[in-house]
Amino acid sequence: MKNIRYPNGKPAYQPEKISVKNRGIQTEKLVNEANEFYLNSGRAVIHKKPTPVQIVTVDYPKRSAARIKEAYFKTPSTTDYNGVYNERYIDFDVKETQSTTSFPLRNIHPHQINHLAAVHAQGGDAFILVAFARLERFYLLPYAVLSKFVFRSKTGRKSMTLEEFETHAYAIALGFQPTLNYLDTYDAWKKS
Amino acid sequence: MKNIRYPNGKPAYQPEKISVKNRGIQTEKLVNEANEFYLNSGRAVIHKKPTPVQIVTVDYPKRSAARIKEAYFKTPSTTDYNGVYNERYIDFDVKETQSTTSFPLRNIHPHQINHLAAVHAQGGDAFILVAFARLERFYLLPYAVLSKFVFRSKTGRKSMTLEEFETHAYAIALGFQPTLNYLDTYDAWKKS
Repeated sequence: MKNIRYPNGKPAYQPEKISVKNRGIQTEKLVNEANEFYLNSGRAVIHKKPTPVQIVTVDYPKRSAARIKEAYFKTPSTTDYNGVYNERYIDFDVKETQSTTSFPLRNIHPHQINHLAAVHAQGGDAFILVAFARLERFYLLPYAVLSKFVFRSKTGRKSMTLEEFETHAYAIALGFQPTLNYLDTYDAWKKS
Repeated sequence: MKNIRYPNGKPAYQPEKISVKNRGIQTEKLVNEANEFYLNSGRAVIHKKPTPVQIVTVDYPKRSAARIKEAYFKTPSTTDYNGVYNERYIDFDVKETQSTTSFPLRNIHPHQINHLAAVHAQGGDAFILVAFARLERFYLLPYAVLSKFVFRSKTGRKSMTLEEFETHAYAIALGFQPTLNYLDTYDAWKKS
C-alpha cells in the first residue's frame, strides 16, 4: 500500500494489529452488532458463545461478587456462533485475513471443520464468514463449498484465492443498520 | 425420608448438597452424557454453552499457557443448551428441584424466559428439562406450556405442582445409553 497522508494522520480504515489469537475480532464486532439488531427487530436469535474457560480457583469474598483467581483458556469444541432464523438452525464461525489475495485454510481449526460437518449432516445451515479486512470485502462460504477446498488442501493449494471467493462464495454487501447484514446474504444463498 | 441403613452405608441415590448457584448440576451431567452419546452416534449436535466470564486480567508467561488472574461470572443472556436435531433448532435449559411436590418457577430467570420466547417465535423448539431430584423423575416441559404457568404465577401460584407436570409435561423414562434419553421424549412431544 502507498504511504498516503490523510487529514487526521490516519488512513480511512486502519485495522488494529491483530495477533493470530485475535484473528477475526474486528469482523466479530460487526457480526455481534448485526445479531443485536436481528434480535431486537425479531428477525433472528443468533448469539456468540462465551469463550470457554477452565476455572481453577474462585474466591468468595463476603458482600461482593465471586472472583475467579486462576483460570485458563480452553480450546472450543464448536464454532462461535449459532442460533435460529426462520425455523432454520444456523451455525458459523467468523474468520479474518490481512491478505489481499487469498485466505489460508489453516485459519480454520480441525475441530471447527468437524463441527460444521456434523451440523451439515444433521440438516443445519453451516458456513463461515470470511473477511478480507484490508479490502473490506466479506463473504459467506457454505460448508459444502468449504469442504471441497479443505479436501483440495490435503494434496494441493493450502488456501482459497480471492477469485475463488468471488466465484464460489456469497459476497456480503455493506449497508446501514446493520452494517454487515449477513442474513440478506444467507437468504440469497438459500434461494440460489 | 426414613433413615434406612444400606450395605455400603449410603442410600442408593444421594444427591450432593446443591447450593442455589449449582441447581441442576447433577441433572446437567446426565444431559451432557446424553449429548455426547448423540454426537458420537450421529443422532444430534447439541452442546452446553460455556459459562460466561468477564475477563479482567490475563498473564502471558513465557513458554506456558496464558493464565487468567482476575475474572468474574456474568449473567448468561441465553439458556445453557442448544443445537440441531433432525433439521430442527433445539434450545433448552436444565432445572433441578429438591422438592418432592412442586417446582418453584423462580428457578427460571426472566432472561431465560425471554430467550425461550424469542426462540419459540422464530420457529425453534424451546423447552426446559425439569428434574425432581429426590424422586428421580424428569420432565420435558415445552415453552408454550411453561409460558402459561409463568403467566399464572403473576397473579396466582408461584410454582407448578408435580401433578401438573404429570398432566402437561412429557416424562423422560430413564434408560441405558444414554441414561437420560431426552430426545426420545422430544420425539414423543413432536409427534403428539
